[in-house]
Amino acid sequence: MNAFKFLDEIGPVNTNTMVLDKALGYKTVEDMLTISGNYFNLLKYGWGTSILYDEEIIKDKNELYHSYNIRTYTGGTLFELANKQNKIDEYFNEIDRLGFNAVEISDGSTTIDSDRRAQLINKSKELGFYTLSEIGKKNPQKDSEYTTQQRIDLINTDIEAGSDMVIIEGRESGKNIGIYDDKGNVKKDDLTSIYENTPKEKVLWEAPQKNQQVELILTLSNDVNLGNINSNEIVSLETLRRGLRGDTLGKL
Amino acid sequence: MNAFKFLDEIGPVNTNTMVLDKALGYKTVEDMLTISGNYFNLLKYGWGTSILYDEEIIKDKNELYHSYNIRTYTGGTLFELANKQNKIDEYFNEIDRLGFNAVEISDGSTTIDSDRRAQLINKSKELGFYTLSEIGKKNPQKDSEYTTQQRIDLINTDIEAGSDMVIIEGRESGKNIGIYDDKGNVKKDDLTSIYENTPKEKVLWEAPQKNQQVELILTLSNDVNLGNINSNEIVSLETLRRGLRGDTLGKL
Amino acid sequence: MNAFKFLDEIGPVNTNTMVLDKALGYKTVEDMLTISGNYFNLLKYGWGTSILYDEEIIKDKNELYHSYNIRTYTGGTLFELANKQNKIDEYFNEIDRLGFNAVEISDGSTTIDSDRRAQLINKSKELGFYTLSEIGKKNPQKDSEYTTQQRIDLINTDIEAGSDMVIIEGRESGKNIGIYDDKGNVKKDDLTSIYENTPKEKVLWEAPQKNQQVELILTLSNDVNLGNINSNEIVSLETLRRGLRGDTLGKL
Repeated sequence: MNAFKFLDEIGPVNTNTMVLDKALGYKTVEDMLTISGNYFNLLKYGWGTSILYDEEIIKDKNELYHSYNIRTYTGGTLFELANKQNKIDEYFNEIDRLGFNAVEISDGSTTIDSDRRAQLINKSKELGFYTLSEIGKKNPQKDSEYTTQQRIDLINTDIEAGSDMVIIEGRESGKNIGIYDDKGNVKKDDLTSIYENTPKEKVLWEAPQKNQQVELILTLSNDVNLGNINSNEIVSLETLRRGLRGDTLGKL
Repeated sequence: MNAFKFLDEIGPVNTNTMVLDKALGYKTVEDMLTISGNYFNLLKYGWGTSILYDEEIIKDKNELYHSYNIRTYTGGTLFELANKQNKIDEYFNEIDRLGFNAVEISDGSTTIDSDRRAQLINKSKELGFYTLSEIGKKNPQKDSEYTTQQRIDLINTDIEAGSDMVIIEGRESGKNIGIYDDKGNVKKDDLTSIYENTPKEKVLWEAPQKNQQVELILTLSNDVNLGNINSNEIVSLETLRRGLRGDTLGKL
Repeated sequence: MNAFKFLDEIGPVNTNTMVLDKALGYKTVEDMLTISGNYFNLLKYGWGTSILYDEEIIKDKNELYHSYNIRTYTGGTLFELANKQNKIDEYFNEIDRLGFNAVEISDGSTTIDSDRRAQLINKSKELGFYTLSEIGKKNPQKDSEYTTQQRIDLINTDIEAGSDMVIIEGRESGKNIGIYDDKGNVKKDDLTSIYENTPKEKVLWEAPQKNQQVELILTLSNDVNLGNINSNEIVSLETLRRGLRGDTLGKL
């Protein structure tokens, strides 16, 4: 039971929050979930980290996250490696065997043409995975070549292809990528332009920095889908969504 | 028993150190206290985080902190919400029921006139709580409207009203607020002016960044009261206070 | 057993990685090692932190790290304090008693002439400790007075004196020190100049920031010796070394 029930505060927000696991130990996850397990529903094992530790720990962590109804997936980097090596079937088999129940389709570090991309989204859906796809390039130079209109088109194309959620790349740093400038400030025109031309319930913004979370919540809505949240900052984000921190108190 | 007893180093410092708990799990706190439980005496559950997890965990964490003689309180945000909703009695009852033994009186996100403020400090004292009050506005624009003389007056007024400790707002970021500029550097003139015109044992400076801790220790004294310390940095701060780190070694 | 075995990725890298322990609890270390214990081989208890907690915890942590073949040592600050107080024998006895099996010889905060320095390296070796020595001054002003040629000479002199590994100071911040400018960017000319004129297998670069790790790996080699790695970033660094993260994928 929660405390301070006499306060009229903003209730639970119906939204998607994706947390980044950079290689947490099992017991650390267990302890963290007792506090923040109800405040996120998507968990990404960052980039290729899940190759590097014992598969029994991965299986156990997946089960633990699922017990809180949190979907788990491994970062797009492994997917891209498998695709580049023509091992997509092996990839889907492996993540199934390890107990992941979601997939990220991305081309942040490699190139995948649009037909192939649609095919892969389809395949992932047919296999029963919750399917996320990501828009953006890890390389800032390449990423900056996208126009806002191109980003909008890519998002809508992915959704037509069957993607359950399209992620706007923000990286772990939140700097010099997508809607963020080199200081991590939000480019407001790009943000609102994308927001107004895509279905908001299917777009998730990576927003690792607190100032980004605040600005997205205040500019768009407190139920905006957010991702790449640090595992220590989950409850903090929830306080922002519910007006329980100075930055958003009285402004929602 | 501690190691390296043959070294002539600076002994324990008689001071106040306030740590920020952003929503730590019980077992994380337990493990952290075995190492750093002797190096702080005040614990703040950040802003509204303590609304968001099970009250049994809050009660257990409060007991655990108290077993190390650490006073606990919930961030001023909840107090401000309760005050705004005319539910101050409910608030004091609730924190008592949950096992907090200190209170923060603040108006960082709302407005409370000075009579009411004095009244609230009084009430908190009468109820037996260790009472902290905070000077500063969460909004940088509003905060910058205070002159240094106004800050000095507010501090002394709170102390006259019975406040056990007055906190100088530094936020979690330590930037663009109070005595810190937008890069987190200390505004030295403001700092020394406040220090010289207030009772140093009753003023606690929020100083989340290491450079701020170093500068406050070297400019004022190694027993300066410091707060908003990250729970991973408690021992690090103690090494600064005792000349056991390059930044202060030989300079105290 | 690791997962994703069907992928042709870069295998384990034969290198040295030094992690910074700023005062971790025993259970936190235990949990962290289940995930990342195979990806580092040197552990530094930062500066004077190990004075400040119970010696039984230090002994237990040393045993735990050693069970993963990780060598442990205490930051140079304690060594410098002992040397300044003419208590070097006591120092070596004490670290032996506490179960450290490596030593850092440094003069970052004090001055030690070159004969004495060589003597101390020698003594440490004779006593059977794995011996690291560090080049650089904690004070940015003093540190900037070294020319690159002087740094090269100091490194080679230490190696001739018997040092097993020479550390290039980067501090916890990675800013305004050694090969890093005040924003933490790598000074490439200084870096390559030092690299080309010293034995690469005996030089370890403190590189606390991710951009520094990426740049050192891409500029020098993926087996470059790196240190001051945050205990939460060990697996992340290993993904960089093995091309499992966007920053280095396809570039090694």
